Amino acid sequence: MMKRLSELAEVVNGVVAGSDVAVGGVTAVENAEEGHLTWAENPGILDRAISSAASAVIAPAGSQVDGKPLLLVENPRLAFAKILKVFAWKDEAPAGIHPTAVVGDNFNAPGDVSIQANVYIGKNVTLGDKVVIYPGVHIGDNVKIGSYTIIYPNVTIYSQISIGKKVIIHAGAVIGSDGFGYVKSSNYHYKVPQIGTVIIEDYVEIGANVTIDRATTGATIIKDGTKIDNLVHIGHNVNVGEKSIVVAQVGISGSVKIGNRVILAGQVGVKDHTSIGADTIVGAHSGVISDLEEGSFVSGYPARPHHEQMRIQAYLRKLPEMAKALRKLQTRLDEITGKKEK
Amino acid sequence: MMKRLSELAEVVNGVVAGSDVAVGGVTAVENAEEGHLTWAENPGILDRAISSAASAVIAPAGSQVDGKPLLLVENPRLAFAKILKVFAWKDEAPAGIHPTAVVGDNFNAPGDVSIQANVYIGKNVTLGDKVVIYPGVHIGDNVKIGSYTIIYPNVTIYSQISIGKKVIIHAGAVIGSDGFGYVKSSNYHYKVPQIGTVIIEDYVEIGANVTIDRATTGATIIKDGTKIDNLVHIGHNVNVGEKSIVVAQVGISGSVKIGNRVILAGQVGVKDHTSIGADTIVGAHSGVISDLEEGSFVSGYPARPHHEQMRIQAYLRKLPEMAKALRKLQTRLDEITGKKEK
Amino acid sequence: MMKRLSELAEVVNGVVAGSDVAVGGVTAVENAEEGHLTWAENPGILDRAISSAASAVIAPAGSQVDGKPLLLVENPRLAFAKILKVFAWKDEAPAGIHPTAVVGDNFNAPGDVSIQANVYIGKNVTLGDKVVIYPGVHIGDNVKIGSYTIIYPNVTIYSQISIGKKVIIHAGAVIGSDGFGYVKSSNYHYKVPQIGTVIIEDYVEIGANVTIDRATTGATIIKDGTKIDNLVHIGHNVNVGEKSIVVAQVGISGSVKIGNRVILAGQVGVKDHTSIGADTIVGAHSGVISDLEEGSFVSGYPARPHHEQMRIQAYLRKLPEMAKALRKLQTRLDEITGKKEK
Repeated sequence: MMKRLSELAEVVNGVVAGSDVAVGGVTAVENAEEGHLTWAENPGILDRAISSAASAVIAPAGSQVDGKPLLLVENPRLAFAKILKVFAWKDEAPAGIHPTAVVGDNFNAPGDVSIQANVYIGKNVTLGDKVVIYPGVHIGDNVKIGSYTIIYPNVTIYSQISIGKKVIIHAGAVIGSDGFGYVKSSNYHYKVPQIGTVIIEDYVEIGANVTIDRATTGATIIKDGTKIDNLVHIGHNVNVGEKSIVVAQVGISGSVKIGNRVILAGQVGVKDHTSIGADTIVGAHSGVISDLEEGSFVSGYPARPHHEQMRIQAYLRKLPEMAKALRKLQTRLDEITGKKEK
Repeated sequence: MMKRLSELAEVVNGVVAGSDVAVGGVTAVENAEEGHLTWAENPGILDRAISSAASAVIAPAGSQVDGKPLLLVENPRLAFAKILKVFAWKDEAPAGIHPTAVVGDNFNAPGDVSIQANVYIGKNVTLGDKVVIYPGVHIGDNVKIGSYTIIYPNVTIYSQISIGKKVIIHAGAVIGSDGFGYVKSSNYHYKVPQIGTVIIEDYVEIGANVTIDRATTGATIIKDGTKIDNLVHIGHNVNVGEKSIVVAQVGISGSVKIGNRVILAGQVGVKDHTSIGADTIVGAHSGVISDLEEGSFVSGYPARPHHEQMRIQAYLRKLPEMAKALRKLQTRLDEITGKKEK
Repeated sequence: MMKRLSELAEVVNGVVAGSDVAVGGVTAVENAEEGHLTWAENPGILDRAISSAASAVIAPAGSQVDGKPLLLVENPRLAFAKILKVFAWKDEAPAGIHPTAVVGDNFNAPGDVSIQANVYIGKNVTLGDKVVIYPGVHIGDNVKIGSYTIIYPNVTIYSQISIGKKVIIHAGAVIGSDGFGYVKSSNYHYKVPQIGTVIIEDYVEIGANVTIDRATTGATIIKDGTKIDNLVHIGHNVNVGEKSIVVAQVGISGSVKIGNRVILAGQVGVKDHTSIGADTIVGAHSGVISDLEEGSFVSGYPARPHHEQMRIQAYLRKLPEMAKALRKLQTRLDEITGKKEK
């Protein structure tokens, strides 16, 4: 597929500067080949893009450089993403129910769906229009899935779960496993039945091999537009707000409440029953062990205000020299007083 | 289903104080609705439960409050768990072997079993009575599984593995993958064949997407009543004692020995070949890099006695002011001696 | 199966000292039984091996001990691994395509392959000779897999992925899920289409429930002979060099470049867009947040040269006594000057 810059300009609301060449794809500058469109987020990177093998460059509005035709836009990163979509290959989703799929009673899917090989669907399941279920997926009883949602291979959705529309769930993710709850009885751990649910709202994306536990009672909730990376663990009764970002290998313990637009960087841990206010950023590998106000920026373990953590890190590096200065002071004082003290 | 408090009192060995109302479910106080039973672990929380919409409250024996009928018990948390079980929905487990399941030679299941869609069972597999195998599970050759064990969808059990009775294995878990063992040869990593096994004893619960590697020789063992949360990694030849608790995303390296009733909080790492004594608690996100005695309580990375770790954390916060005090002392001493030293 | 020491000596290029006994297996010393061969890596451990129940011992060349026949070799660990292979049981791989497998158009597998129950294979897939695909595996469209590669149950390989020869992929691993890329638009996260690929080169081993994301454009690459442990996350556009070792639960963010023969110990995190030079070792639980030169040895969070990190750890333990010394100095100085300062 070839597209002229002018055609792509329509997609991204941009302006062509230079020759209206046709391109066959769009790539990051390190993979750029002749015939490709590449992109530069800011003027500093533009030179590299211009000197690459690419045939044209998406550049910030106002850029004035020679050497290649430009597609000028407000937000080059967003334009790159939108043009990627133009050129993206997509798996074909064969229509209907594959003969090897097993579908339970009272199946309710009035629109077009793609239910692929070896899928299992329990009883009383409702699927919206254009839902795609890849091979090997398990969907328990009484599950509802909204329209345009895509569920990749070998995902497990336990019974009684509710999933919104335009959700993407990557391979191997598990939604609705039992929360980790036991009562210490005299001599053993008595399992607390986990009879709540999980609610995944619209536009959520869930990474590969993520685990989201069902609530003990009530619901574990992932709100609208939140994006979750691979191998994240979300415990029972957790509530993650809208448009939040949860990076790979984060672990969120039971009953945590997270506000809207929060960013949890990779490998963060959050203690059970804590609250994280909206618009908070938690640095990678940090541990949140107490409530955080809206708009916090924390890091470290335990998580502190980031500037404090940075200051402590700076002093940590100075520890050897502080210890030396301390010994020196002792020596000087010993000399003054004429006696050696420890 | 409606149950009178007096009926539930029999289940939990409790006493009804007030009207013997009927309830249709039991929930945590934050989800309590009219017609529900809720619970209060201690007198402090009892007020909140009384003022909730619930129709009755499980309360500690001896509680004297008006406003709602009470179900008085020794251990409200345990009573809540037991009553949850009364009201819990359960997936139906269709009896027999689903026609899409593939079962190998010499299959041995004398009792009732539920082998669901698209399950694969290898040769010489033995299943106890009332075993439930959900769709998409893989069971290798020569596996033995005890009675009443439940294996959720898309679990993989490699060959030659032994699993006890009343075990629960959540979706996506992998039991018996190869231990991570290589010999550095001149120019490459020579794979050490992993020909040992995994033994999962009775009453163990294993979370979603957990991985437990088989032993090189001998066995990786998880003992009676131990509970393992999601996304935990357990390396080859590890031995976890009875009734231990391993929280989400813990990583246990090869050949670690863990005693009975140990608690490893979330994201803990344990170095290979270390021993952790019985009744030890390891705080979240900590790293155990040397042996721990029985009854230890450690935290931090590297893990230290918890009170020491707390003390170090307290001094860490004081580092900036210590550095300032040090500079001040230098200045004072310079003034006394009349010369500036560093 | 019984093997004489002289037969095994041929496999490992060793020499028999003592009686040429026959053994029925090889085990670590802690599992050694009569009739077994065991091994001792160095003279210090040799005594324990000699006093075990084993019938013979693999020992370092030059060892002179009585009590058991010895198999003398240059590298006992390597000899143990090679002899394990002699005695190892192996799953049988039934030839051909199981009738429950679903195979797409234009399937290209000219050699012998084992495609087991409930496998799904998309369109235009090419498999080399002797490839083994266990039950429940998903292979997307346009995937290529080299000869002798083994893919364990319930693995998901997305479309357009390339896998080399003699690769081993353990159960539940996911190869080719979308990279975690979004553009912050005014009020939501716009998904960046991930249209690149993953290239797994020859002799790579990938652990259970690992996730490796496809590139945005270009390829995520795991080079020849690299070994990856369970539950590791590898982000989009990462490049891992040859013969590297990535231990369990490591997380590698997007666009990271890792050299040859690097070792990342368990639970390490690597920041996006950083470079790690060849022959680097990163200690467990550390966080790499900036580029590392070839041959680095770092630990801690943030990762520092290991000896520096050890020094900081040593001073951390001394912090309470440093604080005490500081107060003492203040008191002494106050006494000298006759005035109390803070």
